[in-house]
Amino acid sequence: MKTRAAVAFAANQPLEIVEVDLEGPRYGEVLVEIKATGICHTDAYTLDGLDSEGIFPVILGHEGAGIVIEVGEGVTSLKPGDHVIPLYTPECRQCKSCLSRKTNLCTAIRATQGKGLMPDGTTRFSYKGQPIYHYMGCSTFANHTVLPEIALAKIRDDAPFDKACYIGCGVTTGVGAVTNTAQVEPGANAVVFGLGGIGLNVIQGLKMVGADKIIGVDLNNAKKEWGERFGMTHFVNPKEIDGDIVAHLVELTGGGADYTFDCTGNTTVMRQALEACHRGWGESIVIGVAEAGKEISTRPFQLVTGRVWKGSAFGGARGRTDVPKIVDWYMDGKIEIDSMITHTLPLERINEAFDLMHKGESIRSVVVF
Amino acid sequence: MKTRAAVAFAANQPLEIVEVDLEGPRYGEVLVEIKATGICHTDAYTLDGLDSEGIFPVILGHEGAGIVIEVGEGVTSLKPGDHVIPLYTPECRQCKSCLSRKTNLCTAIRATQGKGLMPDGTTRFSYKGQPIYHYMGCSTFANHTVLPEIALAKIRDDAPFDKACYIGCGVTTGVGAVTNTAQVEPGANAVVFGLGGIGLNVIQGLKMVGADKIIGVDLNNAKKEWGERFGMTHFVNPKEIDGDIVAHLVELTGGGADYTFDCTGNTTVMRQALEACHRGWGESIVIGVAEAGKEISTRPFQLVTGRVWKGSAFGGARGRTDVPKIVDWYMDGKIEIDSMITHTLPLERINEAFDLMHKGESIRSVVVF
Repeated sequence: MKTRAAVAFAANQPLEIVEVDLEGPRYGEVLVEIKATGICHTDAYTLDGLDSEGIFPVILGHEGAGIVIEVGEGVTSLKPGDHVIPLYTPECRQCKSCLSRKTNLCTAIRATQGKGLMPDGTTRFSYKGQPIYHYMGCSTFANHTVLPEIALAKIRDDAPFDKACYIGCGVTTGVGAVTNTAQVEPGANAVVFGLGGIGLNVIQGLKMVGADKIIGVDLNNAKKEWGERFGMTHFVNPKEIDGDIVAHLVELTGGGADYTFDCTGNTTVMRQALEACHRGWGESIVIGVAEAGKEISTRPFQLVTGRVWKGSAFGGARGRTDVPKIVDWYMDGKIEIDSMITHTLPLERINEAFDLMHKGESIRSVVVF
Repeated sequence: MKTRAAVAFAANQPLEIVEVDLEGPRYGEVLVEIKATGICHTDAYTLDGLDSEGIFPVILGHEGAGIVIEVGEGVTSLKPGDHVIPLYTPECRQCKSCLSRKTNLCTAIRATQGKGLMPDGTTRFSYKGQPIYHYMGCSTFANHTVLPEIALAKIRDDAPFDKACYIGCGVTTGVGAVTNTAQVEPGANAVVFGLGGIGLNVIQGLKMVGADKIIGVDLNNAKKEWGERFGMTHFVNPKEIDGDIVAHLVELTGGGADYTFDCTGNTTVMRQALEACHRGWGESIVIGVAEAGKEISTRPFQLVTGRVWKGSAFGGARGRTDVPKIVDWYMDGKIEIDSMITHTLPLERINEAFDLMHKGESIRSVVVF
């Protein structure tokens, strides 16, 4: 079949809207009509050529929502008409990782997904006879896409696509880091570094689980209002305090935070986040993706005296199991999404969405098909 | 009263055996007759002038066992004749840390202990009218010493002092890192870096809790036999493998270790320990004390993909609660101590114990009074 897609033919070039060829679903695969997709920093990271594993030409996009059109042989958990969210972290429920009960990082299709291929080692997309690669196993910048059954979360039918798509990455990454990775308890004090699309979702996750102090840290004072809208109780601009940010946060939290979250991708901030933790038990969660080659450092004394350094990918969420629950939380009003979607655009204007993000003018832009 | 002690009058000088003056216990304090004490790397670290907070003259030693001689006013949990192990990490059961249920790092007397003083800000030891400082709140290189009640674990009367003293630091630090900090589950695969007095106790802790692969890593092949005696299943000498130690260990553990333990204090090894962990859930525990100023580093990707970096002090043990249990484990034959005590010496020969440790000829030397 033919479908419209925003194709990245090469790094550092605008996406081009073209009609591509899409093969139907093979064994264990599902054809999905994408109704809406968010534009995330990770898409920009790859488009800007910063991802050493980036492959072109490719159809980017990993934060979508849509409807099942057709299922391939062997697919048992989905049928045409089902509403779904594509999962860049699948959940096969059978690999060593899924069975460990200790991680969400399913490894069933990791090798092919990392190469822009479907599990059988081929692509479904092509343009003028040349293959176009898949991205993060999702490629939601196409109006139709094919995914493995294990990479689709079935969600309720009444969730609006243009909001639910954000649960495919940003919402789950932020809220899940609180509920799954850190497992923050009521009454905890927390610090969130970086109040962008992820940080705000960490904040609303903290509010949902009953944290006490929810301290947001950002260099941009305009983020104060945003943070407060989602539950932030204190705002700190590191440029506007006297002295060291770590000492300031330790003071503000009465000895250090129970949990800190880095949503900046800056390795210096990651260190500050660890060291702002409470002696004896504070846990720091790295969420942000650092520049290639950058390293985090600290004195081991920070760990020996009880601080814990960990990370979170896709909010520690098992996609097929947890994403439908987060959709419920949204529909039940436990978390908010609508106001974070600052811009909604048609596919033809997708490059504007990247510009808005680079300029820091959007929290999240969503493309609707 | 007068008592015999090995006094460190200055850094980098041998200890001198002299008769010092010891004041009796004040409110909340206890006078203990030390019957045996181990000599640990931390004592040497301070004696060698590497501890920036080291104060002289001081009576070192923090791994002892003895008998209560006299209790001060207000002491309710101990009486003369009780057998005890001094605790450099006390357990007051009332401070924020103790009440958190998340850490063993009681802070009740931290400020004064770090300055070589009793909680009231004075010393009990003196020599020719000049104060001699306490060390880690214990000073077990004296035949008699005074400690706060909260810094003494009451143990059973039938445990031999010259073995039980090792539970005051090395045994608890190693075994506790497994049982308290990492909470290793049966069937786990683990790697232990550094097979000295701590590493061997980590190994026997792993054996006790039912770990599967227990891999020991050391540059000294003589440690293979030692490791095996305590439950090690595989030995790796990094000098004798082809290629990278991390890749070798990941291969040997079928994808990475569930738990790794650094018992070397070497920050390069600490990084290897983290990176040898399994993607998704491997946890690395820093136990070794690094040189002042040294830092640990890694790519944040290691954390984002599910590895956890933490540390352990005194094996995460709450001393008054957990040390008596570890004494029981020893008396019940669940863990072994006797063969690790390679040398037993009188106080007069304590400097020889330091020499043996520096030469790597002892696992543990114990001084008996």
